[in-house]
Formats: sequence, structure tokens, C-alpha cells
Amino acid sequence: MEKIPPISDAWLEQIRWNEHGLVAVIAQEFGSKDVLMLAWMNREALSQTLQKGQAVYWSRSRKQLWHKGEESGHTQAIREVRLDCDGDTILLIVDQKDRIACHTGKHSCFFNEWDTVAQHWVEMKE
Amino acid sequence: MEKIPPISDAWLEQIRWNEHGLVAVIAQEFGSKDVLMLAWMNREALSQTLQKGQAVYWSRSRKQLWHKGEESGHTQAIREVRLDCDGDTILLIVDQKDRIACHTGKHSCFFNEWDTVAQHWVEMKE
Repeated sequence: MEKIPPISDAWLEQIRWNEHGLVAVIAQEFGSKDVLMLAWMNREALSQTLQKGQAVYWSRSRKQLWHKGEESGHTQAIREVRLDCDGDTILLIVDQKDRIACHTGKHSCFFNEWDTVAQHWVEMKE
Repeated sequence: MEKIPPISDAWLEQIRWNEHGLVAVIAQEFGSKDVLMLAWMNREALSQTLQKGQAVYWSRSRKQLWHKGEESGHTQAIREVRLDCDGDTILLIVDQKDRIACHTGKHSCFFNEWDTVAQHWVEMKE
């Protein structure tokens, strides 16, 4: 996605921000269509995401903007931005640098699978 | 997924429920790998999901359990249940009945795409 100029505040208001001023964001890998992670954005994070062409989230634990991959190098280049029917969830289609989205070094954050027979979580092989 | 007996409460505590006792749930279609929707579950919804083998969410607007498709017929049969690295998001892999997940009658709830040139949302063709 090309870098674009700052978007108008009016547009941001089309999103149904929650009581904390946040919207849920699902990151899905372009091509593989693997679901990589779920994170959150505030208005500033979404604006920066569109300006940079890379995912910028709001870290709820650190209470600050989080340009994903700024330290690890595992940035997410934005291919598409989609919004759901009721405007409270964004789906980002991304190119995941090094194919590592998780802070554990794994490809996707969703590496635990429920084993219906053993009735416990099992770590999936990549 | 086979229907399984009720799971222990201890297991449910491995999930990091939020301050409202909820966990975010992404539904992804088996096969196509399309992301269909984001919804929420409480402990009872997750238990019922695993027992029925069909997605049961917690409706935050109606404040009640919501067996998806009970009225519309567009049920979601569970193929896999995955948990993310920090335990606060579930990824359901489902067979979407009639391939209609959205209450609008569309396949996926994520049918609005951000147009970087026009700078507004565009409804995607299915």
C-alpha cells in the first residue's frame, strides 16, 4: 500500500471506538491467509498505520503506541484495511516481515490448539 | 469436531478473561481461510461451544448467550479451537453453514475495504 496523507478526523469517527477509544484489529497474512494476531488501535495508531503503510498498534499493557517490529524488525506492511459490518473490528491484510508475528518468535500467535481427546492445549508444530 | 463432555473449570481459567469476563473470538472459515467475524465468549459460551460442536457466543448488546445460527440457520460447526500466546484471544476454525456469517447476509462481516486513493470505505464484491 502506498503511503497516504493524514486522513480526516471525520473518517475516523466512522469507526465505533469502544469505551477506551480502541478498536480491535485482526492481522491476517497476505497469501497464506494465516491469522497472525489480534491487537488494538486508537485513532492515532490507525492514522500512523495508514501514513506509514506499516501496522502501528496501541499497547494496552504499556499504554503507548507500538510500531510493530520497530525493535524486532518483524514489521507488518499493509496490503488492505477492512472494516466489519458494525464498525468495531478492523481486518488488516499484511506482509509479515520474516513471517514472524509473535513475540515468542513463532509465525502466528495462535499456536495453541485445543485437544478434544486429551482435553488440554497442545502446541502446534509450524 | 466430536461433541465432548463438559470441560473442567480449571481449564477455563487458563484463558485470560477480560474485566467483563469475556474473551475475543475470531471465526475463520475452514478451507477458504476467510476471516468471517469477531465476537466474544464468556465461560458458559465457550463450554457450550465445545459441548455442542457449534459456536455459541456472548452477545454484548443483548447481554445473553447467542447460539449463532439458531434463528438464521447459519450455524458454525467447530473444526479447531486455538488460543493465542497470551491467552486472551481464541481462533475458531469453522465450517460456516451456507457460507453466510454476517447478519447482512454476506459471507464475511469484513466487506468494507479502505480505498487509499478515494479515501473512503468501499463495499467489496463477493
